[in-house]
Amino acid sequence: MKILRASEFLTEWRIRNLQSVDLAIDQQVLAILQEVRKNGDAALKAYTKQFDGIDIGSFIVTKEEIDAAYANVSDAFLSSLVQAKQRIATYHAEQKERSWFIQQPKGVMLGQQVTPIERVGVYVPGGKAAYPSTVLMNVIPAKIAGVQHIAITTPPQADGSVNPAVLVAAREAGADIVYKVGGAQAIAALAYGTETIEKVHKITGPGNAYVARAKKWVFGDVGIDMIAGPSEICILADETANPVYVAADLLSQAEHDEQAAAICVTTDKVFADKLAVEVQKQVKQMDRVQIATKSIEDAGRIVVVESVQEAIDVVNEIASEHLQIMVQNPMEILPFIRNAGAIFLGDYSPEALGDYVAGPNHTLPTSGTAVFASPLGVYDFMKKSSIIHYTKEAFEEVADDIIVLAETERLSGHAQSIRVRKGEQK
Amino acid sequence: MKILRASEFLTEWRIRNLQSVDLAIDQQVLAILQEVRKNGDAALKAYTKQFDGIDIGSFIVTKEEIDAAYANVSDAFLSSLVQAKQRIATYHAEQKERSWFIQQPKGVMLGQQVTPIERVGVYVPGGKAAYPSTVLMNVIPAKIAGVQHIAITTPPQADGSVNPAVLVAAREAGADIVYKVGGAQAIAALAYGTETIEKVHKITGPGNAYVARAKKWVFGDVGIDMIAGPSEICILADETANPVYVAADLLSQAEHDEQAAAICVTTDKVFADKLAVEVQKQVKQMDRVQIATKSIEDAGRIVVVESVQEAIDVVNEIASEHLQIMVQNPMEILPFIRNAGAIFLGDYSPEALGDYVAGPNHTLPTSGTAVFASPLGVYDFMKKSSIIHYTKEAFEEVADDIIVLAETERLSGHAQSIRVRKGEQK
Repeated sequence: MKILRASEFLTEWRIRNLQSVDLAIDQQVLAILQEVRKNGDAALKAYTKQFDGIDIGSFIVTKEEIDAAYANVSDAFLSSLVQAKQRIATYHAEQKERSWFIQQPKGVMLGQQVTPIERVGVYVPGGKAAYPSTVLMNVIPAKIAGVQHIAITTPPQADGSVNPAVLVAAREAGADIVYKVGGAQAIAALAYGTETIEKVHKITGPGNAYVARAKKWVFGDVGIDMIAGPSEICILADETANPVYVAADLLSQAEHDEQAAAICVTTDKVFADKLAVEVQKQVKQMDRVQIATKSIEDAGRIVVVESVQEAIDVVNEIASEHLQIMVQNPMEILPFIRNAGAIFLGDYSPEALGDYVAGPNHTLPTSGTAVFASPLGVYDFMKKSSIIHYTKEAFEEVADDIIVLAETERLSGHAQSIRVRKGEQK
Repeated sequence: MKILRASEFLTEWRIRNLQSVDLAIDQQVLAILQEVRKNGDAALKAYTKQFDGIDIGSFIVTKEEIDAAYANVSDAFLSSLVQAKQRIATYHAEQKERSWFIQQPKGVMLGQQVTPIERVGVYVPGGKAAYPSTVLMNVIPAKIAGVQHIAITTPPQADGSVNPAVLVAAREAGADIVYKVGGAQAIAALAYGTETIEKVHKITGPGNAYVARAKKWVFGDVGIDMIAGPSEICILADETANPVYVAADLLSQAEHDEQAAAICVTTDKVFADKLAVEVQKQVKQMDRVQIATKSIEDAGRIVVVESVQEAIDVVNEIASEHLQIMVQNPMEILPFIRNAGAIFLGDYSPEALGDYVAGPNHTLPTSGTAVFASPLGVYDFMKKSSIIHYTKEAFEEVADDIIVLAETERLSGHAQSIRVRKGEQK
């Protein structure tokens, strides 16, 4: 694992995060979106044949299929899933916003009415692995928000079924329906509707490049959560950190994919050297040794800094999806952190804890987007409407100001809508 | 103005709102983005020459130019602007969110740290008119959020200057810098930075099709507020509504542009007929008679419904940017409204009041996007980081659940990061 100074590291980091434009993918995605809008289910079936190799009968997972899924998961899995669900629900319940208003003189009432989004679609990736945690992290906040209809869409496996762990998670979390369709065609179906699949108002959940680009294109016709890029972990460690823990946590990120980045920022050169050795040792024992090795080679970095202050500056610049603070007094660092998706404090708060059971959402802003974006939350499944109630008396007090400002903007129709209420005609 | 039944109206409405894809615009926009990324200020100067017809010296508006602007606006304008600023600030101060945490057994602390976005760019359209209200509605919430650096960018006028009303509004609202550059090139400069223009983390503000598409393309590299489409007003009126007021309010929306939609949903056929006559009469007296006439012809509609319940259903389906409720007891309708950008209650809360001085933001979700989106607010200029602190005791309680879930997802590196802390090696 390369050991660098902060300035060297930041130079390569800034370049890494910019999105690349690949118009070839966009053109394929746009063609799929248009085809699904035009031909609905028939287009979905054709793409499912083409991309998943399956002649699919119905896209809708039946109640019986979900019942059967329970027989195909272990008791340990179900018990751990329920435990995770409860902790996630407890945390997210704290995020529910209330409608509010303020009163002003002369009977004015101003505020915001907060309401759930009515219909939401959640994309759950398929392929070789199953992601029940994705189901929990998307469906639970939507449910708490009060979303009436939550649809999951996920690519079918080679035999036309959906992984049982995903189906069990869907029912436990409270999803209303599961569709067997993946890729850009699934995003098109959720955004525009087909004979079988009902249009939704917002789409959340991770996916491959085609799914991500499809989400970007349908954004505006429907809401989306975020465009996820390669993910990363940053660990701020001092000389008191345990290199065995830090190495294991870096590697837990590195195993995700070859593009993942695992970074340790440390004030201690001796620790940096110990960590490099430990990573080298642990990576060889991993099941996903190839992926993790490539990730560590390409983007795994140990950054040695001169002071705690410099460490804080560097982690704020990285704006990491996951930030672990493993120093003697981690809580004292917290108020200095400005940019991070999730902040994990101390030796016993590893990223994997947050990925599954801690409570907070594991859908976090990646690739430095934590400088402007937030974790997925209940607030992503609600929206606000401003409330404006003025009385005649309050209106008359501001009427002339409105007229002056509207006329500055050459919107005399706006001014006129005020004048008619003052009993003046222009 | 056409009078329709709800079902006829909704059929045409649903088609209207979908975004159209115009790859010709996208290709132009992408070329501009790439050119500015590559050549910085030189590219900006070339585009300013090409699109604005100006050989621009410096993009930065000087302190002296802003000082001079004060001499070129009326006292009435300055006084109305300050009045609007105060009301907007008072309202938006209520939106500031706090960091929070909860405690759980065994010393667990979970929460969210809420921090301002550090650097924000605001696009202010130029052209024939000036929009000081756009400046207030974007800069004030950013300021309240605690944004450290707020840059405004706006196209220069034919003589290379910026409209004085915009400059005065910029200083009064607290913007840090104003750049004279417009179009997609301005969005590129804010997103990627040039020699003169510093990169920001989020871009807000309205603009033409090129600006809107540029925002969509840079989204992900920076945050954006929303993609604004044609705007609309919907007025729910019963037999007690004043047709003179309703007509004036519909026309205040129609004067914006030919694509704007002005809709009245009413339970009273007699009122509908009176309103159509009144619109016909008032439109002829408008300064922008051509724009308003075209807008009313194309998308101005009076929808007659059978009951208050049907009226509510229709306005929820429209999900209007602006919704005025002009019935006998407007406050009683409020809790039934699920989808609207801003809700204006009663005879003395016309849209123009909300556009300028009422307090709430005038940047609202358009084209039916209120089903998933919210008004611009202080929350758009802040972001959240999850906080996770587990103790050893709390960690041990959930360690096995994490291992089970991670292994279900075939992420054994995640499981291993838990095992090393339990003192187990795999």
